[in-house]
Formats: sequence, C-alpha cells, structure tokens
Amino acid sequence: MSQSPLLDELIEAFTCLPGVGPKSAQRMAYHILEREREGGRLLAARLQQAIEQIGHCQRCRTLTEQDICGICLSPKRDGHVLCVVETPVDVNVLEQATDFQGLYYVLMGKLSPLDGIGPRELGLDKLKARFAEGEIKELILATNPTVEGEATAYYISEMAREWGIAVTRIAHGVPLGGELEYIDGGTLLHAFSERKPLV
Amino acid sequence: MSQSPLLDELIEAFTCLPGVGPKSAQRMAYHILEREREGGRLLAARLQQAIEQIGHCQRCRTLTEQDICGICLSPKRDGHVLCVVETPVDVNVLEQATDFQGLYYVLMGKLSPLDGIGPRELGLDKLKARFAEGEIKELILATNPTVEGEATAYYISEMAREWGIAVTRIAHGVPLGGELEYIDGGTLLHAFSERKPLV
Repeated sequence: MSQSPLLDELIEAFTCLPGVGPKSAQRMAYHILEREREGGRLLAARLQQAIEQIGHCQRCRTLTEQDICGICLSPKRDGHVLCVVETPVDVNVLEQATDFQGLYYVLMGKLSPLDGIGPRELGLDKLKARFAEGEIKELILATNPTVEGEATAYYISEMAREWGIAVTRIAHGVPLGGELEYIDGGTLLHAFSERKPLV
Repeated sequence: MSQSPLLDELIEAFTCLPGVGPKSAQRMAYHILEREREGGRLLAARLQQAIEQIGHCQRCRTLTEQDICGICLSPKRDGHVLCVVETPVDVNVLEQATDFQGLYYVLMGKLSPLDGIGPRELGLDKLKARFAEGEIKELILATNPTVEGEATAYYISEMAREWGIAVTRIAHGVPLGGELEYIDGGTLLHAFSERKPLV
C-alpha cells in the first residue's frame, strides 16, 4: 500500500499481464509515473484502441482489425495448403521463421474436455466447412506437442481424412542449437525413435 | 510484424515498461487480446487516470494525487525526524518494512553532475527551507549505497550540519539471510570494517 489509492489501483491493474507479479507491477507503475508518462499515455491509448478494434478474422480466426485478415485476402497465398495452429501468435512466429505461403487456421485453443473446450469452441465446424469447399489439398498440423495439442491434431487429422486431404504434422525432436544434456527425456525418446537415415 | 498494424503498435507500446523487451511485449499484447480484454481495459483506464491525476506532494515530493500527501498531513507522524530517500518507491518499502513514524523527503533522483542533475533538480533548496523551519532534529539519510547515492548523502549531511541537525546514515552490510559466498567484495569489506562488539 502506497500513500496513493490511484497508484495502488494502477499497480494492481498491471498484475493482469502475464509474468507480472506484485513486485514487477510496482516497479512498472513507479517507472511510468516517475519517468515515462508519455509512454504510459501511449500505452493506455493503444491498449484501448486495440481492445476496441481488434477482433477475429472471419475466415481463419486470427487477430485482426479487419473482417478478413491480410493473409486470407492475399492473392499470393496458396489456398491449397492450410496450416492449423493453436493461437494467433503462432501465425506470427511461423510467418517470421518460415517461407510458408499457404493459409492458416487458428483454433484459439486446444481440445481440453476438462476445461469445457470441445470441437465447437475451436470452431472445428467452420474448419469442416473449409474442407467441404474442396480447395484444401494439404493440411499441416502445427499444434503444440503437448497432450492436448496432440489430441487436437489427431482429432483434426481424422476429420480431414474423411475429405481425402493429405495431413502432415510438423517435426518434433531436439531443437537446433540445443544440447542433449539439457533436453527433456520425452523429447529425446521421440528424437531417437524418429531418427532418419542420412543420405 | 503481425498481420495487424494496431497489434504491432500495442506490442511496441508495451516495451516502454521496465524489463519488457520485444518478446515479453508480444506475449503481453496477445495475452490481453486473447483472454484478458477486461483486465486490459481496466489497465488502460487506470494508467490514464494515474498519469493525469498523480503529481508530487508539495512538501515531500513523493507521488500523490493530493496537494500534500497523507504522511505529511498525518498528525500522528513525528515532524522532528526526516528520512531522505531517492524515489517514491523507497517511501513505500520503508513504510512496509519499518515502523518509522517520522516524515520523508523524496529527492526524485540523486546528484549526478554528468547527467545534469544538481542540487536544484533534487529540490535541495526546498529541503534547506525545511531545515530553516527549525522543526527537524534528526535527519536519516537513506539514499542508495551507490557512488551517486553516497555523494548525495554526503552533500545533504553537510547542509544539515549548518543547522545543527543530527545526521544518521542507514546501516550497510551483509543482508539478513544472505550468504557470504554470494555477497560482493565491496559489501563484505564494508561489513568487516564496520563490525560491532557483541554485548
């Protein structure tokens, strides 16, 4: 508790950010008020604007302020390949790291029956409708390699097979630059059993 | 670069926070938009409100939305003891950790001639005026134990001596719970030379 109720409220509000506990929140609030008021004003305005205007792409469900996002609208992208990811940030990192030229579909989560997240919450009916359109030839499953992510990938692959769509899963194993010493056992086991012949 | 200019702007705005680089900023922006819009709205409103309404106490210079802060106004506090700190957050942590019942004076910085921060920027004229009022009997110097903090403490102690005010400096040494093994050499040297007889 500081001597200012407004300041206490601001500190508390900062704790809604991921990875920000009471100590970091306090540091952020004092930092803004002591020497970054301009930045704070800008942050408030952009937060408000983004929250008001950014919604989901009606086609791929990623975050965008338009009805249909730039990727879905682009005539340069290959509509025959669809990459399924869990969240909008995954689209972002794949765009930065790969030269993938197909389209995306963002689940906004993963199958998790215990949390009440089923096929409907992930918009899988919409995805099925995309399959029905007949344009998609290959489906790349890029959900995370967690139990739920794998289950989600399996569920969608079964769906896609009904439409005769080729389904692939991104590769898992030891990350580049990683040291075996620091890799978890599950990943190592997978990397070992999925070994490939050197040509 | 995501597919949304508003989102990119929001990510960039988050980097004004201390300890937040591009990666954390990206995580914060997506987190807010995907599952914490209410918290984001609240954060924006509180940021705006705090920046507009919080200024400095006219007496002790700490952050407050009033003209004079609650501590300076409180009839329960002992006006004979004044504790000098560098920043408002120091007031906060001292209030939480100690039962200090005197008043504070916040420098909002430390003497740093290279950065153009001299006695005037720290409001030392105002502090001198407080000394002249004659109420202060003891001055506790709680600036940080850095080169600038020590220089600032020394400068203020010389000022206070002219008015016959008793000056003390907070103790420095090995922190409680700290292990000698992990303490820096300067602190150890200080702790060693300032050792006290056990009674």
